[in-house]
Amino acid sequence: MKKILLSGIQPTGAPHIGNYFGMMKQVVAAQDEYEVYGMIVNYHALTTVQNKKELEENTRNVALDFLAIGVDPEKMVLFKQSDVPEHTELTWIFNCLVTMPWLSRAHAFKDKSENGIEASVGLFDYPVLMAADILLYDTQVVPVGEDQRQHVEMAREIARKFNTNYGETFVEPKEVIKEDVGTVPGTDGRKMSKSYKNTIPLFGTDEEITKAVMGIVTDSGSDVPMNVYAIHKLFKSEAELVPIYDEHKGKYKALKDALLADILAFVTPLRERRAYYESKPELVAEILTKGAAQAKGKAEAKMKVVRERVGL
Amino acid sequence: MKKILLSGIQPTGAPHIGNYFGMMKQVVAAQDEYEVYGMIVNYHALTTVQNKKELEENTRNVALDFLAIGVDPEKMVLFKQSDVPEHTELTWIFNCLVTMPWLSRAHAFKDKSENGIEASVGLFDYPVLMAADILLYDTQVVPVGEDQRQHVEMAREIARKFNTNYGETFVEPKEVIKEDVGTVPGTDGRKMSKSYKNTIPLFGTDEEITKAVMGIVTDSGSDVPMNVYAIHKLFKSEAELVPIYDEHKGKYKALKDALLADILAFVTPLRERRAYYESKPELVAEILTKGAAQAKGKAEAKMKVVRERVGL
Repeated sequence: MKKILLSGIQPTGAPHIGNYFGMMKQVVAAQDEYEVYGMIVNYHALTTVQNKKELEENTRNVALDFLAIGVDPEKMVLFKQSDVPEHTELTWIFNCLVTMPWLSRAHAFKDKSENGIEASVGLFDYPVLMAADILLYDTQVVPVGEDQRQHVEMAREIARKFNTNYGETFVEPKEVIKEDVGTVPGTDGRKMSKSYKNTIPLFGTDEEITKAVMGIVTDSGSDVPMNVYAIHKLFKSEAELVPIYDEHKGKYKALKDALLADILAFVTPLRERRAYYESKPELVAEILTKGAAQAKGKAEAKMKVVRERVGL
Repeated sequence: MKKILLSGIQPTGAPHIGNYFGMMKQVVAAQDEYEVYGMIVNYHALTTVQNKKELEENTRNVALDFLAIGVDPEKMVLFKQSDVPEHTELTWIFNCLVTMPWLSRAHAFKDKSENGIEASVGLFDYPVLMAADILLYDTQVVPVGEDQRQHVEMAREIARKFNTNYGETFVEPKEVIKEDVGTVPGTDGRKMSKSYKNTIPLFGTDEEITKAVMGIVTDSGSDVPMNVYAIHKLFKSEAELVPIYDEHKGKYKALKDALLADILAFVTPLRERRAYYESKPELVAEILTKGAAQAKGKAEAKMKVVRERVGL
């Protein structure tokens, strides 16, 4: 039997190639090896987005993004978190099991409060909702970045606490930390991130991608423009890159042109698949409805057990 | 059209006559004047009861208690909170709207934390669940004790905040504070309360009630035993009591006997109704199922609007 893997997909606007190589690609790759629940976490998104249109568009777009990069709805359960309100019910039950000091330890919350930001209760309670997300599906594997390691640990602790108090009910999940792919370099050499404005959009137009590539920061004087090379490595092996960087030694424009050609060759089919799904909203709705039914079926069965154990 | 009134019924073990005159009686009396939602708050109870059997029994018993004292299922919607998980979904949405400093102001939580008790997150989040309880049914009137005034105020603030951010959606509820009936005296003259062990059980056996009444603390020397008289006033008018207390001036045993007779005359029909419902578990289940369907219908319709406004 396949192991169960859950990945929370944040509906947060247009992805860049850093998101793709950093996380999105792994989620899709997992669908062959695991039973994957790809959940668009719109309840979580409420902690930052409090605008109907923005949340709806982000949710719709992230579904298109994932279908474009290769989610196979026959293999992966792609669904919206809010189609399974059981997540919030389990959150309440867990809220009654954990203490304020325990939850206050969570880094994400501590960081914000220490920076003087008036955190919402939702942000504070975020790790408990995430534990409910994970435990509801008997998830065994949760691929996360280093910054989320603690949250999976907390989910394990909640599972243990519930099991001790009410009898064996939840599987203790394990995090898989994405090490190598953690930092995709941006156009200025720092980690690619929207906040640094150093991104190359995954589904941008030719013009947008060209502009981003031509804007890659280069150190004059060196034979190999490192920032160009670092990004190029995402698309071609080092063996393939050697002859190219030999041929155009020191010619930054030519090397950027070569990178641009490789990026466009890579993103064009993805862009086309995205346009295809975008033109078929009823197909996308059908995929999400089917995913919701599968996820809800599993969540309902689990909640039946949980409610019975708890005495609700 | 009748105004909507919501009353949260705590499933907390056998009620005493202090509970009856302090709150239970008012809930039942409201069913003629208002559209009453009598909700057995078992999600709330999880903040204190983390034992399946205890929670199940308390929930079952409190339904019997209320049917025994006169809930008319044709008039009042009597239901279990956990049959309407929408309460927890709305709680999450509200959690994302309110800040930690704002929620930390709640007295109940402040009291516990100041007493060094490790509060659970559920206890901290209690006022938000209570706001969801109230707002989900477009509740206009919430009868509460003075200690709950702040929670209704917080529900109003949440309604206002949501309406401002997402457009007019929720009715602002009003609390009705039960003033006169707030303190029913116990057998030692202090407020009747389980924690003081000075209660007279509402559904006790003759022996239990006799024992409690005979144990009422009396000041030797006075003509009128005040603690006996104070409880007696709950069952008879002062005009009715004058001749009795005149006749048995200073005779404590005789006065206690008179009180006992009045209590038994009062509780016997209630006890019989309770025994009737207890012998018909399928009838009780049917009443709660019907109540749940009515409450859920209303909650679902409201959540449909809420989810649409929020963008879920």
